[in-house]
Amino acid sequence: MSALQQRVPDTPVFDLAPWMQPQMLRVEQALSRWVAADAPAGLGEAMRYAVLDGGKRLRPLLVLAARDAVAPTDGAVRSAALDDAALRAACAVELIHAYSLVHDDMPCMDNDVLRRGKPTVHVQFGEARALLAGDALQALAFELLTPDDPAVSAPVQARLCRLLAHAAGSVGMAGGQAIDLASVGLALDEAQLRQMHRLKTGALLQGSVMMGAACGQADALALAALQDYGAALGLAFQVVDDILDVTADSVTLGKTAGKDAADHKPTYVSLMGLARAQAYAGQLHQQAHAALRASGLQQQGALAALADMVVQRSS
Amino acid sequence: MSALQQRVPDTPVFDLAPWMQPQMLRVEQALSRWVAADAPAGLGEAMRYAVLDGGKRLRPLLVLAARDAVAPTDGAVRSAALDDAALRAACAVELIHAYSLVHDDMPCMDNDVLRRGKPTVHVQFGEARALLAGDALQALAFELLTPDDPAVSAPVQARLCRLLAHAAGSVGMAGGQAIDLASVGLALDEAQLRQMHRLKTGALLQGSVMMGAACGQADALALAALQDYGAALGLAFQVVDDILDVTADSVTLGKTAGKDAADHKPTYVSLMGLARAQAYAGQLHQQAHAALRASGLQQQGALAALADMVVQRSS
Repeated sequence: MSALQQRVPDTPVFDLAPWMQPQMLRVEQALSRWVAADAPAGLGEAMRYAVLDGGKRLRPLLVLAARDAVAPTDGAVRSAALDDAALRAACAVELIHAYSLVHDDMPCMDNDVLRRGKPTVHVQFGEARALLAGDALQALAFELLTPDDPAVSAPVQARLCRLLAHAAGSVGMAGGQAIDLASVGLALDEAQLRQMHRLKTGALLQGSVMMGAACGQADALALAALQDYGAALGLAFQVVDDILDVTADSVTLGKTAGKDAADHKPTYVSLMGLARAQAYAGQLHQQAHAALRASGLQQQGALAALADMVVQRSS
Repeated sequence: MSALQQRVPDTPVFDLAPWMQPQMLRVEQALSRWVAADAPAGLGEAMRYAVLDGGKRLRPLLVLAARDAVAPTDGAVRSAALDDAALRAACAVELIHAYSLVHDDMPCMDNDVLRRGKPTVHVQFGEARALLAGDALQALAFELLTPDDPAVSAPVQARLCRLLAHAAGSVGMAGGQAIDLASVGLALDEAQLRQMHRLKTGALLQGSVMMGAACGQADALALAALQDYGAALGLAFQVVDDILDVTADSVTLGKTAGKDAADHKPTYVSLMGLARAQAYAGQLHQQAHAALRASGLQQQGALAALADMVVQRSS
C-alpha cells in the first residue's frame, strides 16, 4: 500500500516509466564504470557493494529531470557536454548518498545490519573498510565532477562542486545527521524536526535539483522556483519515510522497519500522529507542484512525476 | 635529536622562519574563520577541535611555497585572486589531512587516544560525532575551493578540486589507508611498503605541491619537476616518521610513540633497520633538491627549505 494516494488534477499527464527506465540504465552503467573495482586492498569492492545493484536512484533522477526542465526547447541542439555534466552530477549525488548510508549504518551511529535487503557494508567488509569506503566515495563524487576535459566547462564543474559540497557538509547533510544524533530521546517540536530533516535529507535532494539546473539555462525566477520545489519534495520525502517506518514491513522497505520508534527517535508520526503526518505529506506534495507551475519551465513533467512518486511510494 | 642531520651544500641559502611565520599566521587565521563553530549540535565544535591549535601545517606550507615558486618574478603584479585561491587550497588540504586523522584514530582503525598532545576527537566528542566531523571536514574542503566569487577563476577552482579529490580518494590517501589496514601483521616487501606510503601520505603531500602550482603559471617541465619533488618529499616524510616512531618519545611526538612496532605494522625501520632507513631518507632528500634544480623555477627557496625541514624534524 502506498503511503498516500493523491491526485493532483491540474498537473499535465507525464508517463514516468518510459522516461525513467533509460535514465536509470544510464546511471547504473555510469556508476558501474566510474566506481572502479581496482582501488587497492578490497576498497574498490566495498565501494561498489555500497553503490551498485540497489537503491531507488531518486537523487540522480532528480538531477536528470531538472536538467531536462532547463534544457533548451527551441530547436537548439542539446549540448553533449552538458549532458555529460548532468550524468556526472547524477552519479556524484548518488555517491554522496551512498557514503552517508555506509557511515550512518555503522555501530557508532545507527548500528543497522540491513540495507537495500543486503547486509550493511560494515557487516560485509568490517568497520574499518566501511569507514574508508565511505570516505573514498565522497572524494570520488568530487573527482567525477571535475574531469580533466575541457568539454565540460570549468564554470559548470566549479558550480556543481560548490552545490554538492554545501549540500553534503556541516550546514547540510552532515549537520542534519549531527542534530539527529543529538536528538535521540529528546522531545523535538515540529520546527526543530523540520530543521533537522531540511538538513539531513532535504539538503541533498534539493541540491540534486539545483545541480541538474546548473547543467542548463535557467533564469533567477526559475531557479528560485526549483529551490522551492526541492525544499517541498525533500521534506515530503522524509514525512513519507516516517509514515512508511510504521506502516510498511522490513521486506518491503529493504531495511529494518519500526526502527525509529524502537530507537526513540522523534518522527513526524510520533509528533503528529499518522493521520496528520499523511495530510502534511499531501500538503508538501501540492507545494512541490505549485512551485513547478510557478517556475515557468516548459519540460517539468519528469520533476512533477517524481514528486508524485516520492509521495505515493510504498518503500 | 633530529632524525637526520644532513646538509645539501649546493642549495641556495633560504631562511625559512621569516617566510614561514607569516604564512602560518595566515593559514591559522583563515582556518579559524572558515571552520565555523556554528554547525549544529556540537558538530562545529568537534570540527574546530580537529583542525585548530595544532599540527605542523606542512601541507598548507607546501601549497604556499609551490605558489611562490610559480609566481611571476618579472615585475608583474601578483594576482590577489590567485593568492586567495592558494590560501583556500592551503586550508583545504589541511582539512583533508585533519579529517583523515580523525577517522584514522577511531577505534575501528588505529584506536589511538592521543593526537597533537590532546585527546583524539572521538575520545573528546564520542565516536559518532567524530565520524560526522570528519565527513563534514572533507565536504568543507571542497566548499572552500569553490567560492561563489568570480575573482577566483572557475578553471582554477575546478583544477584544485580535481587535484584534491584525486589525492584524497581511493587511488590516493584512502587507498593507502586501506592497504595499511590490510597489511597489519603481513611481511610487506620494500616495493609494497613504498606503494602503500605513496598513496597514504605521499599523494596528499604531492597534491599540495601541485595545488600550489595550479595557482600560478608553470610550464610542463616545471610541473613534472614539481611532481618529482612532491613524490620524493612525500616518501621522505614517511621514512622519517617511521624513524621517529622508534627514536622519539610520545611527549615530543604529541602522539603515541612506538605504536607501529606494538601494532606489528610494517615500517621502513622494521624492514631496513634504522641505519638503512636513515640513509634512504637522506637519498630521498637529495632527490627532492635535484627535482627543484631541474624545475628551472626561480623562487624555489621555500620548497627547498621545507624539504630540509621534513627530513631534519624531531617530531
